[in-house]
Amino acid sequence: MKRSQSLHEAADPNFRPLVVIELVKDAKEETKEWLVKRIMDKKKDGGAQLLIKPLQENEVDQGNIYLVGASKLRLLLGAEAVGLVKEYHDGSMRTFTFSNRKDFKDFSDDHANFLTMAECQYIIKHELENLRAKDEKFIPGSQQSRLYPGKSILRRLSTSGILVQTFPLHDTENLKRLGHTWYGKVKLGYQPLDDIRCYFGETIALYFAFLEYFTFALIPMAIIGIPYYLFAWEDYDKYVVFASFNLLWSTAILEVWKRVCAGMAYRWGTLMMKREFEEPRPAFHGVLGTNPVTGREEPVYSSLKRQLRIYLVSVPFVCLCLYLSLYVMMIYFDLELWAVDFHEKHQSELSNLMLFVPSIIYAIVIEIMNRLYRYAAEFLTSWENHRLESSYQNHLILKVLVFNFLNCFASLFYIAFVLHDMKLLRQSLATLLITSQILNQFVEALLPFWLQKRHNKKLKRTMKCLKVDGELSLVEQVRLEKEMGTYLGTFDDYLELFLQFGYVSLFSCVYPLAAIFAVLNNVTEFYSDALKMCQVFKRPFAEPTASVGVWQLAFETMSVISVVTNCALIGMSPQVNSLFPDSKTDLILIVVAIEHALLAMKFIMAFVIPDYPYEIRMKLARMEFESLEALKQKQLDLREDW
Amino acid sequence: MKRSQSLHEAADPNFRPLVVIELVKDAKEETKEWLVKRIMDKKKDGGAQLLIKPLQENEVDQGNIYLVGASKLRLLLGAEAVGLVKEYHDGSMRTFTFSNRKDFKDFSDDHANFLTMAECQYIIKHELENLRAKDEKFIPGSQQSRLYPGKSILRRLSTSGILVQTFPLHDTENLKRLGHTWYGKVKLGYQPLDDIRCYFGETIALYFAFLEYFTFALIPMAIIGIPYYLFAWEDYDKYVVFASFNLLWSTAILEVWKRVCAGMAYRWGTLMMKREFEEPRPAFHGVLGTNPVTGREEPVYSSLKRQLRIYLVSVPFVCLCLYLSLYVMMIYFDLELWAVDFHEKHQSELSNLMLFVPSIIYAIVIEIMNRLYRYAAEFLTSWENHRLESSYQNHLILKVLVFNFLNCFASLFYIAFVLHDMKLLRQSLATLLITSQILNQFVEALLPFWLQKRHNKKLKRTMKCLKVDGELSLVEQVRLEKEMGTYLGTFDDYLELFLQFGYVSLFSCVYPLAAIFAVLNNVTEFYSDALKMCQVFKRPFAEPTASVGVWQLAFETMSVISVVTNCALIGMSPQVNSLFPDSKTDLILIVVAIEHALLAMKFIMAFVIPDYPYEIRMKLARMEFESLEALKQKQLDLREDW
Repeated sequence: MKRSQSLHEAADPNFRPLVVIELVKDAKEETKEWLVKRIMDKKKDGGAQLLIKPLQENEVDQGNIYLVGASKLRLLLGAEAVGLVKEYHDGSMRTFTFSNRKDFKDFSDDHANFLTMAECQYIIKHELENLRAKDEKFIPGSQQSRLYPGKSILRRLSTSGILVQTFPLHDTENLKRLGHTWYGKVKLGYQPLDDIRCYFGETIALYFAFLEYFTFALIPMAIIGIPYYLFAWEDYDKYVVFASFNLLWSTAILEVWKRVCAGMAYRWGTLMMKREFEEPRPAFHGVLGTNPVTGREEPVYSSLKRQLRIYLVSVPFVCLCLYLSLYVMMIYFDLELWAVDFHEKHQSELSNLMLFVPSIIYAIVIEIMNRLYRYAAEFLTSWENHRLESSYQNHLILKVLVFNFLNCFASLFYIAFVLHDMKLLRQSLATLLITSQILNQFVEALLPFWLQKRHNKKLKRTMKCLKVDGELSLVEQVRLEKEMGTYLGTFDDYLELFLQFGYVSLFSCVYPLAAIFAVLNNVTEFYSDALKMCQVFKRPFAEPTASVGVWQLAFETMSVISVVTNCALIGMSPQVNSLFPDSKTDLILIVVAIEHALLAMKFIMAFVIPDYPYEIRMKLARMEFESLEALKQKQLDLREDW
Repeated sequence: MKRSQSLHEAADPNFRPLVVIELVKDAKEETKEWLVKRIMDKKKDGGAQLLIKPLQENEVDQGNIYLVGASKLRLLLGAEAVGLVKEYHDGSMRTFTFSNRKDFKDFSDDHANFLTMAECQYIIKHELENLRAKDEKFIPGSQQSRLYPGKSILRRLSTSGILVQTFPLHDTENLKRLGHTWYGKVKLGYQPLDDIRCYFGETIALYFAFLEYFTFALIPMAIIGIPYYLFAWEDYDKYVVFASFNLLWSTAILEVWKRVCAGMAYRWGTLMMKREFEEPRPAFHGVLGTNPVTGREEPVYSSLKRQLRIYLVSVPFVCLCLYLSLYVMMIYFDLELWAVDFHEKHQSELSNLMLFVPSIIYAIVIEIMNRLYRYAAEFLTSWENHRLESSYQNHLILKVLVFNFLNCFASLFYIAFVLHDMKLLRQSLATLLITSQILNQFVEALLPFWLQKRHNKKLKRTMKCLKVDGELSLVEQVRLEKEMGTYLGTFDDYLELFLQFGYVSLFSCVYPLAAIFAVLNNVTEFYSDALKMCQVFKRPFAEPTASVGVWQLAFETMSVISVVTNCALIGMSPQVNSLFPDSKTDLILIVVAIEHALLAMKFIMAFVIPDYPYEIRMKLARMEFESLEALKQKQLDLREDW
């Protein structure tokens, strides 16, 4: 980062700005002074003991933007406080402690690169969030914003509207380097996952790792699918082979992913990182009471009230939405019928194209409904007033998944199992898949990228600094970044992959080409997502995670459902039916038996394959053994006479 | 315990004998002296620091039996070493530490009842097993028995045949009191689980808790089953109601059991107890190598060789046994046919009775085969040379479960789904269930009890002490107890319950009376098992456990299979078939759909119901929070200047 332009910087070369705090324009001086003092106060006085400086945009104005940094020593102590896990000199991963710092690999006394910038920013975020009120009754300068001992100050500032945002600064040089290896050149090969992790943290790196893994895992399915399309293999035995391969393959890839993921999480140090005690989410509200776990004062909200809100409002609302979605689906089928009629009457080029129009319209409508519903689900889940972010997330994900699943796949189920029209199924599947992929790429990445570019240019023009990129002063960089969009987490990206997995696996034996389209889409997704992360959004705070969490379960559920649908499709195919000319009953019984066997096999596979690779289990066992031995030794040392 | 008769005892009133070590008769003096010295050596010199005294049966002979005890202080330190969890003064459960001992409830300075006798014995067992060789190359007096640094001395003594057995002494007074409340009077009510736990430890108490819970849980099924038998309700709708109730009920009871079990395990302090690092099992053998986890020398056996043994020998052998079992089943059906023929020819009282003979013979043969197979499975699993006891147990349980399942239920599946003979199914089910229950009660409890009684009397006569029970001297008590049988763990008891659960749930809609027989059997099982534990066997060492472990999974699998069988049975019933006179296909599809819905519901229930009750989750969260806070405080204290 070139910081020479900043006058302030030049005065204190030790201060490296890491995080930006933006307050509202009309924040009172009293509030600002108090906040700065609290952030700079020593730990033992209840402060965060960080460095903070106002961003002086011009000589006169104090401004409402602050840059936060920390001394190197402070960052190392913070690394111990958040429980960071780093590589030890013997190659194993250990929880970092300040007293053992010299035993860690890559630690030198100037420890320039021991902590990555993302880690430093994570530590500062953690320290800022854990800056708690002592005996203040309210935020100085703002009598309405009440505080109580132990309340996180930044959360209260944020909920009372004084704090606009906190975000970590980009590291322009590193970002350029990362961008170059990541999406700079069109190449076949792996993504620089370790670099991504260093820059964006584990959550985002894991998403890209999953995207990459999933794409590679789809390639065999795509390749096997090609001859089915080319030679129009529609024989019973070939389909059965394809479907069986898919089912076992999808189970295997999900199981193997767990192991791959554990391997990465170990290497990145998040596998052994202890989860922190969860705070109530900022938007949680209630009467001030006592938390039964911590014994601290905090807002309390009756669980019964929340249950009532969930079961009397949310559940009926979701059901209504599901009904609406089915209603729209029926309209689509009417349109479809009309289009077929039209084609039969006119038999022209145009009417042939018209055949695809209802599907395309329906695909667009589905996307719109998904997005509208998403807002409603967020509002409702927020209104349910969950205490913890994790419980909020789980309820939101469940709501969104159920609706998205029905919305995207209901028409396909209807075509397959009510209309029994395999040709229409294939056509709908193709249209839905391709349309939704194109829409997603456009709405999620290209549109924001274009908007951002335009906005940047305008901003630079107003700043009258039309220099080449990367030559921006710190002040300009902050002003640019604070206007960028905020990355809202990996939810949408995983959801997209989840639906794609559904398109590929649910009806795989009808449309073997789906996997090819998925692979093609994902390859462009690499680039558009990378672009999105690096160019469109503010840098997000790193978030340590060890797995894809609830998405593992969602993907596994989808693969169970796909066993059922594929078996049913094969059982319904005319080729199979012709094998049992006399008795449909035998056919159904055989199909059901095979389905049960496949399901049983899936569960046995999931049970037998260990979640962690052997090596990592050994390393974890070694850690556990050592800590037990250390404890024993400590007990012995305490009683020397024994 | 009256100890006045023991001369030795009188000399040292502080020595309370807890555990008996029996060596072979011809053990060398050198070995004995070395062992005694090592056991009494101080901890810092690598000893166990316990008290040990020979049991002087007469004035002249030194004897080969030793009594082990420990000072009260030593036991408290041992309690810390094994990580015992006790009740804190504020009612929560905490890991005991010697330095905080005064903060624990029931701790007084004479701490007479702070540790139960079972806990003391567990601590002594732990300390004895952890007595390790230092620089000895072999056991003194026995050049063949090699030792290496870190090898458990008692395990080597045991594998080289010098150590006959180690067992904890009974506490005759407490045992009498326990027996009185447990099985002394015929009463309706709960078992004294907490007393059982204090005397026998958690593993055995959990078995009795499970037995009790399971029996109570069967009562609703038994009660609902009665009218079906009395009024011969064979309508479609009533059966469907019964079967659906059973399916949901069995899922619910298994889920609720997890919570009940967690509640007990919390109260008993095992829920939070850390698992110890597992040692190789005594019978494990291999070339001396280095353990990758501990870095210590220990026998190493190639995993590949083990896999080969499993897949090339064990698996084919199990398959052969399964085939044999099916072969025996076919013979049974021939016999059954013959009996029916015989009855039709003769039509007498005798021939009517003869109808039941094949089933009874088959039931007995099944029991015999189960027991024979059990030995084979134990031999094979032992030959597979598993390193850990837990992995040995898992392989053994898997082998035994698969065979027992097929052996017991194959004929019923055959009758139900191949012969479609519901009358025969009902009759076979009843005969199998009742015969196996009677056999079990007899072989497992009554026979050993009778043998033991006879043996005791003979022994007492030879000892020429025909006093009333409980007036035995310590020497006589030890001599009596060392001849008693060894309780081999809860495996057989759980297996019996597992098979019973199968009889009750797999075909519940055909034979609603099964639950009643199961309840009746279990009520007598309370008494016979209690008698067995208290009178027939040596006292077993207490073993802390927090759950029924792999049996939870086994029962859940059974309940999943029972969904499939019950749905199939209902679909096959003539009443249901008459509802769909035209199309069998529709019927099957509907049944399959209902089955899938039930299975999905089971999984959702298992997922939604939390494994621990709210209260316990709160308490665990509180513990975790406190330890995190303590860690933070410690970090802060270390750096006072911060």
